[in-house]
Amino acid sequence: MIFKYLIVLFAILLTYGTCFTQSNQTAAVEDFKPTSVNQPGKLYPQVNSEGRVRASISAPEAHKVQLDISAVKYDLVKDEKGVWTGDSKPQDEGFHYYQLWIDSAAVPDPGSLYFYGASRWGSGVEIPAKDQDFYALKNVPHGEIREHPYFSKSNNSMRRCFVYTPPEYDKDVTKRYPVLYLQHGGGEDETGWPNQGKTNLIMDNLIAEGKANPFIIVMDNGTWRMPEQARPPRQGERPSGTWPPPGWADGFKKTLLEDIIPMVDANYRTLADQQHRAMAGLSMGGMQTRVITLANSDVFSYVGIFSGGSLSMGDVNSSPGFKERVKLVFVSFGSRELENRRPGGPFGGDPKVNTDSLKAAGMNTHFYISSQTAHEWQTWRRSLHEFAPLLFKD
Amino acid sequence: MIFKYLIVLFAILLTYGTCFTQSNQTAAVEDFKPTSVNQPGKLYPQVNSEGRVRASISAPEAHKVQLDISAVKYDLVKDEKGVWTGDSKPQDEGFHYYQLWIDSAAVPDPGSLYFYGASRWGSGVEIPAKDQDFYALKNVPHGEIREHPYFSKSNNSMRRCFVYTPPEYDKDVTKRYPVLYLQHGGGEDETGWPNQGKTNLIMDNLIAEGKANPFIIVMDNGTWRMPEQARPPRQGERPSGTWPPPGWADGFKKTLLEDIIPMVDANYRTLADQQHRAMAGLSMGGMQTRVITLANSDVFSYVGIFSGGSLSMGDVNSSPGFKERVKLVFVSFGSRELENRRPGGPFGGDPKVNTDSLKAAGMNTHFYISSQTAHEWQTWRRSLHEFAPLLFKD
Repeated sequence: MIFKYLIVLFAILLTYGTCFTQSNQTAAVEDFKPTSVNQPGKLYPQVNSEGRVRASISAPEAHKVQLDISAVKYDLVKDEKGVWTGDSKPQDEGFHYYQLWIDSAAVPDPGSLYFYGASRWGSGVEIPAKDQDFYALKNVPHGEIREHPYFSKSNNSMRRCFVYTPPEYDKDVTKRYPVLYLQHGGGEDETGWPNQGKTNLIMDNLIAEGKANPFIIVMDNGTWRMPEQARPPRQGERPSGTWPPPGWADGFKKTLLEDIIPMVDANYRTLADQQHRAMAGLSMGGMQTRVITLANSDVFSYVGIFSGGSLSMGDVNSSPGFKERVKLVFVSFGSRELENRRPGGPFGGDPKVNTDSLKAAGMNTHFYISSQTAHEWQTWRRSLHEFAPLLFKD
Repeated sequence: MIFKYLIVLFAILLTYGTCFTQSNQTAAVEDFKPTSVNQPGKLYPQVNSEGRVRASISAPEAHKVQLDISAVKYDLVKDEKGVWTGDSKPQDEGFHYYQLWIDSAAVPDPGSLYFYGASRWGSGVEIPAKDQDFYALKNVPHGEIREHPYFSKSNNSMRRCFVYTPPEYDKDVTKRYPVLYLQHGGGEDETGWPNQGKTNLIMDNLIAEGKANPFIIVMDNGTWRMPEQARPPRQGERPSGTWPPPGWADGFKKTLLEDIIPMVDANYRTLADQQHRAMAGLSMGGMQTRVITLANSDVFSYVGIFSGGSLSMGDVNSSPGFKERVKLVFVSFGSRELENRRPGGPFGGDPKVNTDSLKAAGMNTHFYISSQTAHEWQTWRRSLHEFAPLLFKD
């Protein structure tokens, strides 16, 4: 059970190192096109209507080239010009990290744009989704993503965050806005939500359609550097003691409360009170949201946990004032994450049962399942798209 | 002569494909350290006090691995664990693009951060420079780099630019600022100046030291998509007709004048007149600056051409009002670019003689040479650092 929990928490980190190898025997539908995240002018990678990914690279002197995606390695085949090409099985809709193996060297695909995940900058690919319109780049009023460097006293170092300001932010300079603090997952960083998360496009489109109130979003780096004695067990190893260890979220909690929030309130036109402050995150960021908001319901009034567990009545009862002060508890998962879920398994209890128990006790809750997606970005884009319209409505 | 001109214009594009191969025989000083642009936690690439770059990658089943930097390929050597390692010759100070070759496949180094140049996202490395303090990240007031999407009527498409706003921009919301339009080179894009150019850090430090007035900097994409009949000659091919072809800068000029400048003046607190507007660029961006400011001296009053030619008296005399309206002509090169320069060679005449002739005619000019750097980013960082304090002083 503990081990399953680790697998979920560090899913992205773990899945790349050890995976199946297979040749792809089934014939693909030949309607492949370059993906939306190819580098300018690059023909590969491509994706077809089945969601298969086709990789291709020139390597006349190589002996073995593989496409490595969703924990499966696919052998590519060399043509007479020395170009290796091959397809994956159909992938879920949305964004996936991947890489190439060239004679046993793991490298980024030179055809794709690069994204930070799995603790590295590497290739990403987009499988067009039926609902991709909600994060499409449209001719609507756009906000900005601002790169903001700042000095952190609690870390005694320079840090940076990305801040989304809504389209009208610079028009009426007397207006103040609520703030959502939005965190990435393990092995990712502050670039996750602005890049593969498509945060600004999701918000710009929601605001243009009148479906969400404009607010500021702060995306910082919640990476949790463990001391060696608290390192996660390696695969095949039994964890010793409690996992995660007590206090695991304290480092980022201190940075968030003592540095990030005061810096944001000093530099942006925020509504700087509990009623106008939300926190959400995915996976590890959802777990941070859970423990930080439980301990600080005087700071945050909206809580979003995407693929990162849920809140039970026990949690709520252990946090004085939480039930009265918090205006929304939002919990979401990808459907594939729940399909394989065992009762009493990861994330401390059935998330739907937990969320319903809060609702029965009179709290405002929202439980969302992203259809046919896993522990991946399409789940989290959709979660933000569901969560944002529920925020700062009064 | 024409061909040399092309080599300079498309230097970055051309040098990667065809280059020398050599093993590095000389013993290196063993004080290698991970570079400042390594991915988090990655031990390689490294650089030593001589400026040598050491690359290393695990590839037990590969037969030949090379480090490809500054147009030279260096063979790496495999150890008993299958890890290939090797060094380059000493490199010039500053930033260089590079890549690895693994059994004839050209790929990014999985250890480095990635930068857009040579018409691709690929690896970059920093050789610590004696003067690196001017672009160091310090605990001083910082401006922001803002990603700004906008609709371009002249292109009938969405575009984006990056906008640097100075540290105090959001403090006094009644103050208006001058604007510098700052362009990248061929094979680069709007990410060049914010990323490898370190524009924000150069400006933040200059402003903190009281050496530059605060102003806005707009960095957009000046990529010039040539019709096939106007494509640049390939290596070894003689160009036919005039190069670059007449009107080559018209596309970006139209976008800049009709879309970018009005959009910036509508969305930022600018001083929206000729007296408070500058244009500068590097290489291809410098050539664009030259032809666009010559044709529009009613729009720009400060001109910066970095490694992109110069202005002669003939140019100035052909542009009515230019001599009277333009407050500064700044021309710069890396010393290594001029070392190999032939009289009457590229960039239309001796840039120092040209610049002196403007000064003799009463214009305010500035000629700058970056010591021991080539057609690379350290030349352009230093050029911006010299240029910015001269702007908007009255």
